[in-house]
Amino acid sequence: MDLASFFRRNDLPAEDLAREDATYGALTQAVRELAEAQLLTTVDLDTVQQVTAEIRALTERLQTDTRPGAFGIELGPDEVPRNHGNTVVGLRNPIAVALADHPIVWNDRGASATLELGPLYEGPPGCVHGGVLALVLDQLFGEAAAAGGGGGMTGRLTLSYRRPTPLGQITMDAWVERADGIKTVVKGALHDADGNLTVQAEGLFIMPRWAREQADSWPKRNRNFE
Amino acid sequence: MDLASFFRRNDLPAEDLAREDATYGALTQAVRELAEAQLLTTVDLDTVQQVTAEIRALTERLQTDTRPGAFGIELGPDEVPRNHGNTVVGLRNPIAVALADHPIVWNDRGASATLELGPLYEGPPGCVHGGVLALVLDQLFGEAAAAGGGGGMTGRLTLSYRRPTPLGQITMDAWVERADGIKTVVKGALHDADGNLTVQAEGLFIMPRWAREQADSWPKRNRNFE
Repeated sequence: MDLASFFRRNDLPAEDLAREDATYGALTQAVRELAEAQLLTTVDLDTVQQVTAEIRALTERLQTDTRPGAFGIELGPDEVPRNHGNTVVGLRNPIAVALADHPIVWNDRGASATLELGPLYEGPPGCVHGGVLALVLDQLFGEAAAAGGGGGMTGRLTLSYRRPTPLGQITMDAWVERADGIKTVVKGALHDADGNLTVQAEGLFIMPRWAREQADSWPKRNRNFE
Repeated sequence: MDLASFFRRNDLPAEDLAREDATYGALTQAVRELAEAQLLTTVDLDTVQQVTAEIRALTERLQTDTRPGAFGIELGPDEVPRNHGNTVVGLRNPIAVALADHPIVWNDRGASATLELGPLYEGPPGCVHGGVLALVLDQLFGEAAAAGGGGGMTGRLTLSYRRPTPLGQITMDAWVERADGIKTVVKGALHDADGNLTVQAEGLFIMPRWAREQADSWPKRNRNFE
């Protein structure tokens, strides 16, 4: 494994990529809205069956020309990773509703993000699923480790749940506590819309062996291998 | 808060509930397949735009009659929770592809599950997002705590990632290490399709104060409040 095989080059001109991203991004956003609508709908079962049949037909249209495997991570002409399949931040992943509209903001110590977690992210009634909070924190921590430390993949993640997190807006902060090049320790906190601390977390990120020698030649923010 | 307000009663006859579940479950499955197809499609942008418009129209049909808030958790006539909105196991949640087709199996020490994590769950290229593994383990641990201990909500979760987990089939096991009624400690492990240990985890589950007095009157497996 090396970085060149980790990423897949996409050297389309920037304007073509922008048009692709806008078009595919709109498709994904439409699927997100459909996913929430079908969770909450109370229409009669005949309508449900008709809509189901129409969705299947649309799926078949999209499957007429398709990528053989998972999306992977592209590297655009500007050297910025295009991890459009990523579960948390992928432009083309409907699960990634959270960070897609609320991009991560980097600072000199780490990263933060404010995002909206709606009904698809429910665990206890009216509250965000604890595992979803682990999911979004893991992504943010990886981004913070890449921006403020050595980057790499998650080695250990510890989450302390202080109280339930109501569905709605959440704010996450992550900062690099220490970094020695190979290992980066990140700490962070998650607050609900009322400003209550609901989750504290700590993560250890480790640069994969195969990436160590090559990593310095890549922009820091590309070093989150998730 | 008490258990009666935590759950919402649904006293439709069992056969009506079964018909609803089959019909809505098929709708959700169709949306799951659409979500993956739109991630991987390489059809031309005109087709993408046409499909996007048709998806929006279907969303509007479903929104003509809709629940005002999140799904919550219903309690059916047999006292079994119907957490159909749950991000990991919800029958009506397209994100919940994982456990929907591969139900959790309980044993006398905890619970286990074998499931398939496809391209929508990608983090590093070809591998499952570390946060997704935290998400599914959190759910399984909660179920194990409910079945073998006191149950409750996640208080702390620690994940140790031993190696990347390739996309595909994974197997998770969770067992109750100790339980004192209020606190339950669960340990577990996750293996990839080749049988490699990829994640070890430990969780502390705490019965909420409001639920303690009432919990004994509920079947054990109802006590996972996620």
